[in-house]
Amino acid sequence: MRVNGTAWRTIWPLDDGRAVGIIDQTRLPHAFETLVLSSLDEVAHAISAMLVRGAPLIGATAAWGMAVAMAHDASDAGLDHAYQVLVSTRPTAINLRWALDDMKAHLAPLPAAERAQAARARAAQVCDEDVALNEAIGTHGLGIIRQIAAGKAAGERINILTHCNAGWLATVDWGTALAPIYKAHDAGLPIHVWVDETRPRNQGASLTAWELNSHGVPHTVIVDNAGGHYMQHGQVDMVIVGTDRTTAQGDVCNKIGTYLKALAAKDNGVPFYVALPGPTIDWTVNDGVAEIPIEERSGAEVTRLWGRTDEGALAWVTVTPEGSPAANPAFDVTPARLITGLITERGVCPASAQGLAGLYPENTPAA
Amino acid sequence: MRVNGTAWRTIWPLDDGRAVGIIDQTRLPHAFETLVLSSLDEVAHAISAMLVRGAPLIGATAAWGMAVAMAHDASDAGLDHAYQVLVSTRPTAINLRWALDDMKAHLAPLPAAERAQAARARAAQVCDEDVALNEAIGTHGLGIIRQIAAGKAAGERINILTHCNAGWLATVDWGTALAPIYKAHDAGLPIHVWVDETRPRNQGASLTAWELNSHGVPHTVIVDNAGGHYMQHGQVDMVIVGTDRTTAQGDVCNKIGTYLKALAAKDNGVPFYVALPGPTIDWTVNDGVAEIPIEERSGAEVTRLWGRTDEGALAWVTVTPEGSPAANPAFDVTPARLITGLITERGVCPASAQGLAGLYPENTPAA
Repeated sequence: MRVNGTAWRTIWPLDDGRAVGIIDQTRLPHAFETLVLSSLDEVAHAISAMLVRGAPLIGATAAWGMAVAMAHDASDAGLDHAYQVLVSTRPTAINLRWALDDMKAHLAPLPAAERAQAARARAAQVCDEDVALNEAIGTHGLGIIRQIAAGKAAGERINILTHCNAGWLATVDWGTALAPIYKAHDAGLPIHVWVDETRPRNQGASLTAWELNSHGVPHTVIVDNAGGHYMQHGQVDMVIVGTDRTTAQGDVCNKIGTYLKALAAKDNGVPFYVALPGPTIDWTVNDGVAEIPIEERSGAEVTRLWGRTDEGALAWVTVTPEGSPAANPAFDVTPARLITGLITERGVCPASAQGLAGLYPENTPAA
Repeated sequence: MRVNGTAWRTIWPLDDGRAVGIIDQTRLPHAFETLVLSSLDEVAHAISAMLVRGAPLIGATAAWGMAVAMAHDASDAGLDHAYQVLVSTRPTAINLRWALDDMKAHLAPLPAAERAQAARARAAQVCDEDVALNEAIGTHGLGIIRQIAAGKAAGERINILTHCNAGWLATVDWGTALAPIYKAHDAGLPIHVWVDETRPRNQGASLTAWELNSHGVPHTVIVDNAGGHYMQHGQVDMVIVGTDRTTAQGDVCNKIGTYLKALAAKDNGVPFYVALPGPTIDWTVNDGVAEIPIEERSGAEVTRLWGRTDEGALAWVTVTPEGSPAANPAFDVTPARLITGLITERGVCPASAQGLAGLYPENTPAA
């Protein structure tokens, strides 16, 4: 999408595919800076330290990580090493494993001398496929937004709440949850987005707000506590969130706090949609609450916050007293029963085994 | 309660009641500083700028504001002026109006020459009554905690989640939601408190964490997004929150985000209690969602955060990009249907008109 009038992707090849460029998302929204990653370790660090984040972009970055690694060591040992280093960077991200398995399946059968070029070609294809997937999600989600608009007076504001960042910064382009919003905005619908700030890492207040602001979509940042109140008062027409992992029965693992918004949407009759590309479905898992291990991150992400001072410098501040510990589960699971529908690249379906089977019959176990 | 081994209240008379001392709660948890308020305007500013906060402490401070004002001008005009200045400081706080009406009813019939002394005596009594009320809430709440403890193995941790600060810092002493926790901790029960940080003003991360830490109660600070996840996984045994205003049918107006925790508690069968002194019941209101106007505070409370830097200085940082607006509703309403019980100074009752009528028959309209 656009920044200062220029179209960007979140990841792009450099040096004929021996290195890769990214936006350092830990610097947003205060600074728009790009980085060159020219070794396997640099790519792994970019994923684990969340310089890149968002399930689809993690997958695309891992694919490029394999390509960068193959440029240095394309042996069988080098291939295994690259896979192992990259797969351990983020335990919850299903796209990570999917992209790495895909790359390994393409590369392992080839002679070592052909792997570097094949890896570059496949990584580029992974990125292009992600863009196509997300644009398709946008088109299907636009249909839902048009239906909501049809129930309102002409020109009346359509209020969409989103949590965390599932925008183009979380993918290669378009985003998942924000793709329908960009499509609707570009189509001239009067969209307004309630942006959950998304503590502890503030991906909403920083990344989603920055994206929408850069593209010109009207929005308002709110604390994560506020969405229920707005739903009680008819000020939310729909919720769209992304997901890191969707189970075969339609449970959704997403950024911590998503479950609370789904409960409020249910309680107030607000449609709650999850936007996802097919590869984020984990067909091996059914009951998300019982089966998905939740990444516990550092308590320092809760106690310490980052922003710009009145003097324009960037600074960390601690908000808790000395001696008070913090806990930091990074995700929660929203049960399928709270979800109105799943917006995928193949269309919209109910959040259920049957719904998903209708769109992805090739993944459904034979009866 | 105790700070560094010394017992404190949150407000105390000085100069024979011509001035009043408070803790500047906007400096907590990074600095423990007290202030002397010696004029009506200083007291009004302390309330409106939230140097003191919490419904009961706002009421006590308003009572002392009347006493301080009477020391300067005890005429009928002075009395009316003090009432008007103080009543406009915080629109949502029912205790504020209650305390001011009480003071005015005591003072208006008296000759001007007697008002200053009568005001001091009544303000001191308002404070002592608040302490007694809160301690009674603590005793009744302790009974509920003992029942929960009885269902667990001996010594097994009892996990209580709370939102915002309804501790002794929000009252004259003991607190409302934290009073049962202090009672249980002091009685030797193995209490652990999940402290919601409570964005945007972080009263949990700053004040509740500071209180519990100062008194020695085990606790963990979490983001407001995390409570639902812990409830899904059996790590919350009960929720206790305070309230700024409870309606005659048991709806509860409290800090923004309370409603979301109540929904999660209901969805997971976790008991959800609200602790309140009788004076915070607004018998003129029934349907809280429809009838209670919600205070909209500055968006800067969302976009800007305060803490201590690694160098030990106190600093503000902005977390949102330039150009992104913010909205900031300060409270939400939790419908009575989501509340397991109300813990009052007279006992525990269902959150319903009938439940409240059983404890407060004098406020129930004759049939």
